[in-house]
Amino acid sequence: MAALFGGVEGGATHSRVVVVSEDGRVLAETEGPSTNHWLIGSELCVQRIEQMVTRAKTQAGGGPPRPPPLLGLSLSGGTSGRRWGRLQEELSRRFPHLSRSFHLSTDAVGAMATATDRGGIVLISGTGSNCKLINPDGSEVGCGGWGHMMGDEGSAYWIAHRAIKVVFDCMDNLEVPPHDVTYVKEAMFQYFQVLGRMGLLTHLYSTFQKSKFAGFCQKLAEGAQAGDPLCCHIFHKAGEVLARHVVAVLPKVDKPVPGELGLPILCVGSVWKSWEKMRADLSRVLAEAQDQVPGHLFTRFSLLKLKCSSALGGARLGARSIGRALPLDPTNNVDIFYTHTF
Amino acid sequence: MAALFGGVEGGATHSRVVVVSEDGRVLAETEGPSTNHWLIGSELCVQRIEQMVTRAKTQAGGGPPRPPPLLGLSLSGGTSGRRWGRLQEELSRRFPHLSRSFHLSTDAVGAMATATDRGGIVLISGTGSNCKLINPDGSEVGCGGWGHMMGDEGSAYWIAHRAIKVVFDCMDNLEVPPHDVTYVKEAMFQYFQVLGRMGLLTHLYSTFQKSKFAGFCQKLAEGAQAGDPLCCHIFHKAGEVLARHVVAVLPKVDKPVPGELGLPILCVGSVWKSWEKMRADLSRVLAEAQDQVPGHLFTRFSLLKLKCSSALGGARLGARSIGRALPLDPTNNVDIFYTHTF
Repeated sequence: MAALFGGVEGGATHSRVVVVSEDGRVLAETEGPSTNHWLIGSELCVQRIEQMVTRAKTQAGGGPPRPPPLLGLSLSGGTSGRRWGRLQEELSRRFPHLSRSFHLSTDAVGAMATATDRGGIVLISGTGSNCKLINPDGSEVGCGGWGHMMGDEGSAYWIAHRAIKVVFDCMDNLEVPPHDVTYVKEAMFQYFQVLGRMGLLTHLYSTFQKSKFAGFCQKLAEGAQAGDPLCCHIFHKAGEVLARHVVAVLPKVDKPVPGELGLPILCVGSVWKSWEKMRADLSRVLAEAQDQVPGHLFTRFSLLKLKCSSALGGARLGARSIGRALPLDPTNNVDIFYTHTF
Repeated sequence: MAALFGGVEGGATHSRVVVVSEDGRVLAETEGPSTNHWLIGSELCVQRIEQMVTRAKTQAGGGPPRPPPLLGLSLSGGTSGRRWGRLQEELSRRFPHLSRSFHLSTDAVGAMATATDRGGIVLISGTGSNCKLINPDGSEVGCGGWGHMMGDEGSAYWIAHRAIKVVFDCMDNLEVPPHDVTYVKEAMFQYFQVLGRMGLLTHLYSTFQKSKFAGFCQKLAEGAQAGDPLCCHIFHKAGEVLARHVVAVLPKVDKPVPGELGLPILCVGSVWKSWEKMRADLSRVLAEAQDQVPGHLFTRFSLLKLKCSSALGGARLGARSIGRALPLDPTNNVDIFYTHTF
């Protein structure tokens, strides 16, 4: 019977699983909540992976029982050899029939494997944020990705937090807000269903859920869309700081990326839906940095987004780890939504 | 039998309990860990309060059994009528013999009641931070005190976080550090007993304890003492931002505070041990703000610190709430460590 390959995209708010046949057809696709092990703990993480994969296997199976797929997990939440080893061990021990073996990678690497083999930069801004340069030789250099307690700049969490902080500081008379806070203040009380700032503390501490907190970014995106100056201001700042992540890894680009795209920047995560609000500041910061990169390595860049789940890249990497090449054409999986030449 | 009054100082790292006789003598004093209900949950909070108070009662008791004291709780972790009502209910329900009744106040109000009846500003910088103006008429205006997720500027947590963030951003090439990071980087790996940044994530997420994290500030204070420029820089910033909390509440000072001290600022918390490193920036920011305060209300200020636990103020407030005045002379409880005239 033909081999199956499974891929998991493990986000901080949503997750996705695909099951792919040896000839590259997607046989099944399922969805689920967060599988970020830092946020929900490894116990719940492996449970949720098992549930989604089992559903996907059933969907893909149809007729006769299939052998378990090889699973390529592409998870948000940082790499740590020991911690990931434990996650893998727990999956094998608790769910021995789930997969023949597991291959783990970060969400950034999984996304890149979905889009291209030529390398480039993955710039994640979803619930959290992260930036990873992946050179064609596979070497990686990162900036950020340390989670909401130590970074996540430009992410939905960061945007939500920054907006709320502006309101708190304004109400405390600690800072003069850059713009009127009325819209953000009202939206914040409404979104969290509280009457005042004290009510918000529960959402920050005892019942804190990163995805719930970060979800407020959606309201700010709506505010920015409607022209609220404070919302717009915060998205401008997000564009700026996301660009600074790219600038941080630029010195490690080892050679010009061939092709018309210039340096490809794969933009992953829902904050990119507000791209128009971030465009000017992101472009400005990259333009300012351009002069400082030696050897004309950085004369053009393109922003790409995935048309499919990066679970597909996870499956690809899983297959590759046992010497199999899934016949997927990555160029079909991406849209180029912006190209800029300096 | 003479009435007893108990006071609880509930910090984010340490707590203290005193039992005071009707004539103002401290009969017993006990210590314990954090009783900040936001950080440890109300379950553990009431348990710890019970343990400390019971020990103090035993200590105070000596001979014949005493009636339970009236307890004045002066707790860090913000006020919320509903949440505090629940805490009080739980104490009464689970430990009916602990006290005849409870009186709750914030740590800031408890500290002020320990030091003076004339009003002034309490500026807390311990594990967390908070600033509260208490006018002689009892009216309060606050700035900060929202905890580590939404403020705590100038606190031990904030100083530790800021130092670590400088190291992370430097290693990521995201920010140029204001000074060399070598000392802070090594101290950080040593304090948290980790080999690299990934190891630190556990301390930020799965095993996060605010008091442990904030405890790193002690190492930075040592670094500042030894002249490390980055450590000094961060304490300068702490002085600046703490002063900005005072500036935030200045417009609400209702009349000049009588006496030679000018505006009394009661400095509570262990970060004040590094006062010398914060002095110049704190004074500068207050001097800059001085012009903007109308009516010559702010021509002089003095910094005070407590010589005893603010549990004493908690006991005082508890007694006052049932119309009893504990004969304590607050002026015995404070040291004036700095006076500045503009």
